[in-house]
Amino acid sequence: MSQPHPIADRTPIERLAAKARSGYTLDQRFYCADDVFDADMAQIISRKWIVAGHVDRVRNKGDFFLFKIGAESIIVIRTDESTINAFYNVCRHRGSLICTEPQGRVARLTCPYHAWSYGLDGALLAARLMPADFSKKDNALHRCHLRVFHGFIFVNLSDERPVDFDATYADLGPYLDFHGFADAKIAHAAAYPTSANWKLVVENFLECYHCAPSHPEFCSMHPPEALVAFGAGPSSGPAEAVLHYLPALKAWEERAASLGRPIGTIDDDADSSHLRLLQQRTIRGGYDSETQDGRLASSLMGKRSQGDQGRMYLSFSPFTQLVATNDFAVLFQFTPRNTLRTDVDLYWLVDGKACAVDVPKMIWGWDETTKQDKLITENNQAGIASTRYRPGRYSEHERRVVTFQRWYLAQFGFALA
Amino acid sequence: MSQPHPIADRTPIERLAAKARSGYTLDQRFYCADDVFDADMAQIISRKWIVAGHVDRVRNKGDFFLFKIGAESIIVIRTDESTINAFYNVCRHRGSLICTEPQGRVARLTCPYHAWSYGLDGALLAARLMPADFSKKDNALHRCHLRVFHGFIFVNLSDERPVDFDATYADLGPYLDFHGFADAKIAHAAAYPTSANWKLVVENFLECYHCAPSHPEFCSMHPPEALVAFGAGPSSGPAEAVLHYLPALKAWEERAASLGRPIGTIDDDADSSHLRLLQQRTIRGGYDSETQDGRLASSLMGKRSQGDQGRMYLSFSPFTQLVATNDFAVLFQFTPRNTLRTDVDLYWLVDGKACAVDVPKMIWGWDETTKQDKLITENNQAGIASTRYRPGRYSEHERRVVTFQRWYLAQFGFALA
Amino acid sequence: MSQPHPIADRTPIERLAAKARSGYTLDQRFYCADDVFDADMAQIISRKWIVAGHVDRVRNKGDFFLFKIGAESIIVIRTDESTINAFYNVCRHRGSLICTEPQGRVARLTCPYHAWSYGLDGALLAARLMPADFSKKDNALHRCHLRVFHGFIFVNLSDERPVDFDATYADLGPYLDFHGFADAKIAHAAAYPTSANWKLVVENFLECYHCAPSHPEFCSMHPPEALVAFGAGPSSGPAEAVLHYLPALKAWEERAASLGRPIGTIDDDADSSHLRLLQQRTIRGGYDSETQDGRLASSLMGKRSQGDQGRMYLSFSPFTQLVATNDFAVLFQFTPRNTLRTDVDLYWLVDGKACAVDVPKMIWGWDETTKQDKLITENNQAGIASTRYRPGRYSEHERRVVTFQRWYLAQFGFALA
Repeated sequence: MSQPHPIADRTPIERLAAKARSGYTLDQRFYCADDVFDADMAQIISRKWIVAGHVDRVRNKGDFFLFKIGAESIIVIRTDESTINAFYNVCRHRGSLICTEPQGRVARLTCPYHAWSYGLDGALLAARLMPADFSKKDNALHRCHLRVFHGFIFVNLSDERPVDFDATYADLGPYLDFHGFADAKIAHAAAYPTSANWKLVVENFLECYHCAPSHPEFCSMHPPEALVAFGAGPSSGPAEAVLHYLPALKAWEERAASLGRPIGTIDDDADSSHLRLLQQRTIRGGYDSETQDGRLASSLMGKRSQGDQGRMYLSFSPFTQLVATNDFAVLFQFTPRNTLRTDVDLYWLVDGKACAVDVPKMIWGWDETTKQDKLITENNQAGIASTRYRPGRYSEHERRVVTFQRWYLAQFGFALA
Repeated sequence: MSQPHPIADRTPIERLAAKARSGYTLDQRFYCADDVFDADMAQIISRKWIVAGHVDRVRNKGDFFLFKIGAESIIVIRTDESTINAFYNVCRHRGSLICTEPQGRVARLTCPYHAWSYGLDGALLAARLMPADFSKKDNALHRCHLRVFHGFIFVNLSDERPVDFDATYADLGPYLDFHGFADAKIAHAAAYPTSANWKLVVENFLECYHCAPSHPEFCSMHPPEALVAFGAGPSSGPAEAVLHYLPALKAWEERAASLGRPIGTIDDDADSSHLRLLQQRTIRGGYDSETQDGRLASSLMGKRSQGDQGRMYLSFSPFTQLVATNDFAVLFQFTPRNTLRTDVDLYWLVDGKACAVDVPKMIWGWDETTKQDKLITENNQAGIASTRYRPGRYSEHERRVVTFQRWYLAQFGFALA
Repeated sequence: MSQPHPIADRTPIERLAAKARSGYTLDQRFYCADDVFDADMAQIISRKWIVAGHVDRVRNKGDFFLFKIGAESIIVIRTDESTINAFYNVCRHRGSLICTEPQGRVARLTCPYHAWSYGLDGALLAARLMPADFSKKDNALHRCHLRVFHGFIFVNLSDERPVDFDATYADLGPYLDFHGFADAKIAHAAAYPTSANWKLVVENFLECYHCAPSHPEFCSMHPPEALVAFGAGPSSGPAEAVLHYLPALKAWEERAASLGRPIGTIDDDADSSHLRLLQQRTIRGGYDSETQDGRLASSLMGKRSQGDQGRMYLSFSPFTQLVATNDFAVLFQFTPRNTLRTDVDLYWLVDGKACAVDVPKMIWGWDETTKQDKLITENNQAGIASTRYRPGRYSEHERRVVTFQRWYLAQFGFALA
């Protein structure tokens, strides 16, 4: 991990971090205090590669969408056939928003206030009546770091040189390639804005200890033994459960590999830059997809010639999750807005050549599950406000949350004892 | 009074208290500043016995309701026939709310998040997959002090040993017994959430100087001379008015006593722990109840064999008021939520054996009066925001408010000059 | 300019002011920070003469309206035929609001809470049951400085002696007199509450660089060359444009003067107390009024015997603007409420004897234009929240905004380099 930068607001975190104990939830203030959120924004959220969307949202020249994160509005726009750019949505003249619609198509980026006009590459093209010594060249839109990788548009808000993208993600190439994400298209999108701190949204997603009580639809699509053993990361469950499930997993891996699927696991440590996780396993016996009846909702994705009853879970970072089965994938974007508000946006991706998608069938599982997650996460936030909230003990089924906390504190330079 | 505990945030109060003058309203910041509210919460609201509700809300095993005060959510629940408990609504695992509905009936207290399950006595019964050294015994729900007294459920949020309940309230027993509150039932409830600091809500209730201009319904049910003389506490009015009314009061007391009613007055000083007030007097001549036409709206309460045209006003503390006439009583719960928000909840109680209650008739007076009080208190709060607000002089009819202010400042260890 | 008073909160402004550069927009915090708004309120908003309304709102004895500015509510009320007063809407007893409706007519100012009753001159007339040493004389309503000038009601919230009114405004008399504002009446009013800092609302109004892209209706009523040359103050445009327009302007001035119109220009410097601006010019060729088809929407105003195709723009201060054409005028009140909220209220004034006013025709231009201004100002505020917002360069068409900023900083004693 790169050394954390010295930050002005380290002190409040430092005081809190000293109290953190491994295996226990964090102190109340980590989830409720504005100064902690500011520190999160400066030290973590603004320094990570975060998926802002899929290229299917900007297929044509001039297509754009806004990505709102913290107090920022970022314009993600296709400049030409081979280039997508990201610019801060702030006119260099008086600071007005330039794009006020959430998405659209434009020939130029023209500020609606005084009509300063920028090219799709962010260059200032027209500014009337400026003083003679005004330099258009010095007044291009502020650029946001952007990389497109197998169809996913990553942005990085760092005002310095960000962590190296390829060193971070190149090894994921074969897995993404197999699913054909570069050519995938969006079949459905839905928003689940959640009144909770971003860390609670992430922690909820990193464990399946809550699946049985909270997610009947989700559980119906998966073998119970897999949820216990692998629900929160490879071998995240109790040793006995892992041992019990491993033979079935190995058998599936061999079968899937024989059908051309790249098999592998990634399980980043707390000292990694992005805490990635990759795991693959089988869905419920006899099911071809994560749907109510197990039948496909769309055509097979990517390089598949037949279904393999498998499922890939890939976490690009705590902010970006991807779940993929044979015929569709779900992209989860967890986007912090302020201390008590996190945007949760889901995009269902299907094969680029799919022509008949059964949308209700496809979204049945994750739409319900995400509505449930919104509710339980908001109740979690509400309870933490009590003076009687105390850091609680994690179960053995929540190991990945403990790793997340170690990673979180490591971003500020603290090691969890 | 027990010595006030040393508190970290005494300083802002100290600075303000030094400016307070007896007979004048408090400084603006006492009613508007968040740091004062935090100090109120820590030093007063969390240390007093406050009525959370009447036992009629939890008649059956597993019946519960939530009592929200400040940032807290408290579960008040019947554990068994003889026991009611209060627990903080915070799961010991990850801190989620356990009960999310305002009231209901449960067999166990099961957290909807990860299904940790607590008994009705708060003991942790089930927590799956916990580490070997995890102790269920150490993870019972956080308990809130609770006492049931003549049907009223008192809670105390203190994290230390609270002020002794019996020493505080035992002498009220005979009065409450006569009205049969232990067996009373709730005939109607209504909420009047008020956008004002809790001290303004209390101050409004402690004086009847505003009754004539603001409360025509209330005034129609009472002899004007009683309102002037006793409207804000025993002998709270001008000496002349008190002298004028005393003979009529004495005559009523003798008559009522002869019918078995315990007669007495309590008028706690500013250095008391709960500033209790008990007074009894006659309602309007010819009236049997506090209704529009003076006729009963329900059957006689408690040990009465006939009506006595009387009225009891009992303040358990600034947060809990009780008004009782022959056939019904009204419980007022003033519950601080934040600096500018106070919940005002009214419960109309009738005799436990009453079978025909005329609810519109019964609520006519106090429903209208409380709507009026909400409005005038909110206008009071709004005016105090001005830079030109200055502590104003109290009338002779607001002596009890002055006593409340002395009591309030005494909670922080300050004596009003 | 009078010396700025020493103020406690000068420090945050001082730090920011040191970074300000002439010709560039201000630092983000000037538009977003609550401590800056508090300083603005104390040092500027509370010290200026600001128009609260026109006398037509209080024609009859006892007529009043509320003027809300910052946290203040001011009662503007007609005491008698020749006197209008302004009082803080705060009862001297417990601080309640006295008037709770936005406007009305009263015989006395009676507080609805405890019925303390004040005369229309603010004197306390009745307060029941007060202690013997209570002085009614010392408990009149707090008075707000007020001056009526040619029909406009100016208030000044200073708690000291305010800047001299006559020295500030007397020279405007002839211009206002010609338009007959003292006898004008309100034909229409509309509110456009704007979620933006007051300085952005003012800056938007002080330049016409945004007119072409944002205001098609407005531009259709004016000669383009006038907008470029004079859109933001006399000779505010590029030298070439000014030279090109001046002959037409001079010809119009001679014609208008021959019809009795007083011709003149006022262009206060940044070191003036109120930064007034007066300019007069012609509207679009062939137009008699600022309407869609150029025809009159009401009868001629004031001393006119015929239309002169002219237009007067008068800024009393950054908070009060006036635009007048032959048959109507528009009064603009920009009233700061808090850091991110400014009330924008428009009053269309017509001649006091006008009997047939075509309201839709009259409001067509400025109603649309002000809706547009609300939108672009709110987008401006939203963009400034970005971490990438940097003070941007002003065009040559925004000179008056630069002057406003110099004036703004001068109120705190800072000179812009």
